[in-house]
Amino acid sequence: MPRQLHLNAFLMNTGHHEASWRLPESDPYAHVELDHYIRLARIAERGTFDSLFLADGPQLWGNIAQRPAGALEPLTLLTALATATQHIGLIATASTSYNSPYNLARKFASPDIISGGRAGWNIVTTAGAEAARNFGLDAEPAHAERYARAAEFLDVALKLWDSWEDDAIVADKAAGVWGDDSKIHPPRHKGTYFSVEGALNVPRSPQGYPLLVQAGSSEDGKAFAARYAEAVFTAQQTLADAQAFYADLKSRTKATGRDPEHIKVLPGIVPVIGSTEAEARANEQVLEDHIVHRHGVANLERLLQLPGRTLELDGQLPSDLPPEDAIEGAKSRYTLIVELARRERLTVRQLIGRLGGGRGHLTFAGTPEQVADAIETWFTQGAADGFNIMPAVLPSGLETFVDQVVPILRARGLLRTEYGSRRTLRERYGLPRPANQHVTTTPALASV
Amino acid sequence: MPRQLHLNAFLMNTGHHEASWRLPESDPYAHVELDHYIRLARIAERGTFDSLFLADGPQLWGNIAQRPAGALEPLTLLTALATATQHIGLIATASTSYNSPYNLARKFASPDIISGGRAGWNIVTTAGAEAARNFGLDAEPAHAERYARAAEFLDVALKLWDSWEDDAIVADKAAGVWGDDSKIHPPRHKGTYFSVEGALNVPRSPQGYPLLVQAGSSEDGKAFAARYAEAVFTAQQTLADAQAFYADLKSRTKATGRDPEHIKVLPGIVPVIGSTEAEARANEQVLEDHIVHRHGVANLERLLQLPGRTLELDGQLPSDLPPEDAIEGAKSRYTLIVELARRERLTVRQLIGRLGGGRGHLTFAGTPEQVADAIETWFTQGAADGFNIMPAVLPSGLETFVDQVVPILRARGLLRTEYGSRRTLRERYGLPRPANQHVTTTPALASV
Repeated sequence: MPRQLHLNAFLMNTGHHEASWRLPESDPYAHVELDHYIRLARIAERGTFDSLFLADGPQLWGNIAQRPAGALEPLTLLTALATATQHIGLIATASTSYNSPYNLARKFASPDIISGGRAGWNIVTTAGAEAARNFGLDAEPAHAERYARAAEFLDVALKLWDSWEDDAIVADKAAGVWGDDSKIHPPRHKGTYFSVEGALNVPRSPQGYPLLVQAGSSEDGKAFAARYAEAVFTAQQTLADAQAFYADLKSRTKATGRDPEHIKVLPGIVPVIGSTEAEARANEQVLEDHIVHRHGVANLERLLQLPGRTLELDGQLPSDLPPEDAIEGAKSRYTLIVELARRERLTVRQLIGRLGGGRGHLTFAGTPEQVADAIETWFTQGAADGFNIMPAVLPSGLETFVDQVVPILRARGLLRTEYGSRRTLRERYGLPRPANQHVTTTPALASV
Repeated sequence: MPRQLHLNAFLMNTGHHEASWRLPESDPYAHVELDHYIRLARIAERGTFDSLFLADGPQLWGNIAQRPAGALEPLTLLTALATATQHIGLIATASTSYNSPYNLARKFASPDIISGGRAGWNIVTTAGAEAARNFGLDAEPAHAERYARAAEFLDVALKLWDSWEDDAIVADKAAGVWGDDSKIHPPRHKGTYFSVEGALNVPRSPQGYPLLVQAGSSEDGKAFAARYAEAVFTAQQTLADAQAFYADLKSRTKATGRDPEHIKVLPGIVPVIGSTEAEARANEQVLEDHIVHRHGVANLERLLQLPGRTLELDGQLPSDLPPEDAIEGAKSRYTLIVELARRERLTVRQLIGRLGGGRGHLTFAGTPEQVADAIETWFTQGAADGFNIMPAVLPSGLETFVDQVVPILRARGLLRTEYGSRRTLRERYGLPRPANQHVTTTPALASV
């Protein structure tokens, strides 16, 4: 069997296009309706996607006039979805900056058990002062400090997930012995950011721990991914950039002593599909026509960390924007947007149109064949192990992708036709179940 | 219709009796199996219980040899149960000492939306150094400080739950206006323990916020309950004690300016049911025979904060135990146990037998009629608004209660026969939906 694509459905409210909620077909309350997400999950499962994914941040973004705001909390939502689906992986975003390892380790172990090993954690460090101010801080911690904390967070979480050996439960009713206490390993961790003494209060879950996913593409982000991540979501605008990112991340992963096959790279793509090229472009135009430009300008100013009313709708970006190093937020996204505008000499209005769909991810309008071709090219040319599918409109965009693009990918032998015997999320991504750090499974040969 | 009983099913692993997991009928892995909890929830729903409830603490208790340890995280578990049930309220325990208000407010708003208004929060301050050491502290915060933090936590959480007015979503597609930002009220809270600036990232939920439940019966606990709680779980061994507690709590609640009808008092009861009194006692004896006494002694020493190997199995408790004031843990439970042992002159072995079922809650062995009589007496004699039903063995004990005691309570007109039109948990408990603190629903008359 040829190498297989990995597909993740990135679910967001009524779709990734910021104006999607204004379409006649869209339910503007969808983001707080469980049934909406159940429907999406089942469509993705029909398309034999590896997983679905929800972004998150512990703050209310901007002004609620603009678009659907507030959302169901990802971990509780994904647990509800676990009971409504059978196969698909369930990836929730959670922040290492605004959680404690003990609580979060448990909150992921529990859905991993409930879902039979289908949980994943998209690890974020959460940029922005707005989030910081919801947790007793005046300003956000510096980028490097957030990543240092994230690394220690992961080390502690891994100790917690390994604090029960898989066979710690004995269940000997006759002897009155339920568990083997010698197979419990309290972390006894004392570090810079965390001090965690005791073992987790959940037995080891089917996957050992959730699939570890990451999406930061800054220098700190790539170093972190190379060390911990098993799947990486990334925003790439060109094949060449995507190839460079892919090669860089695989080589960094190898340099940490890990198998580069054990990190899967999934660029985001916003497919806008039509039965002809013209229809696809028309569908794209309908979305652009629904953009409220005053919102778009304000959002762009915030992304670029400019004061309000700096940008002119039909002007270019200022030439004196600061370098990425001076940005404390989402560094790599900043550079991507500035380079996109300069490379294609876009006006602010045009840039807003291009960002409206995917906020920096690749928007691709075309026929099902053309979308499948783009996916195959990136997949076979060293740019991707799979894709983060970000429909502009939900549920219709996901439905169209599953009904029209998935069959082509299957016919080309690039995508599974059924889930088969691989049951956990990690198995779907072709990754091994992690060994418990306290268990030596193979006898030491050095002493022979 | 006469005043109606409120019933809550307190679910715990294979049952509240510490030896329940050793019975032939018990599944020693039940506590990490979703299906076990779905089955229990459906039995309770068949019995038209108001709610079910899960205890919790952010630590692994003691030695796992003793009994099933570790558990599914309550909020994710209850969200999964929301999708498997239709009517029953879902109450999860979470700690104010080891969570941040922003995260926790959201984690309860989300299941309240998913369940259609059936979420409840059992507010605990979490005693014990073991939990503290999982969150960077060397020792537990003092009892009074935990309650001071809990009060500020509640004030912040209530601000967050009220940070969206109920009608903040406008969804005006034509105008491109999704929400009305003037109906968003960021807390801008700066206090002793917390500083929380921004609005919650979830719209206001069906109940406004989860039903607020509390179970501490110390002086601090009762003061807290009078101010915030809508339902109170309590351990009472005698009718007289329960009446005194009930009257005290209602009067404290009135003193804070609240309607004493708006706090429901539910003592715990461990019913051990047999078709005859002799059969009930025999069932109780089977459970006692399965107790491992070395575990019981160690647990009792920990509860009483005595050094290991202090207690003799066939001796009495020491006469020089410290007063409740000197205890930093579960104060009221300490006093209850010491008084029970002294009042009935119990040996350590006998005391362990009595505590084996309910850890201080009233164990009542009898026929279905006798159990119903006890419930009716407490309910009509000013000792209870309902009961926290704590079956010694699960699921069988809950099944027996629903099949044999519930019909008697219904025949006496004390318990609903169907859920009817009341849909939210708060409606089931006969409580009004809380008004949003930012909305004045009635015009001010003072100026007329």
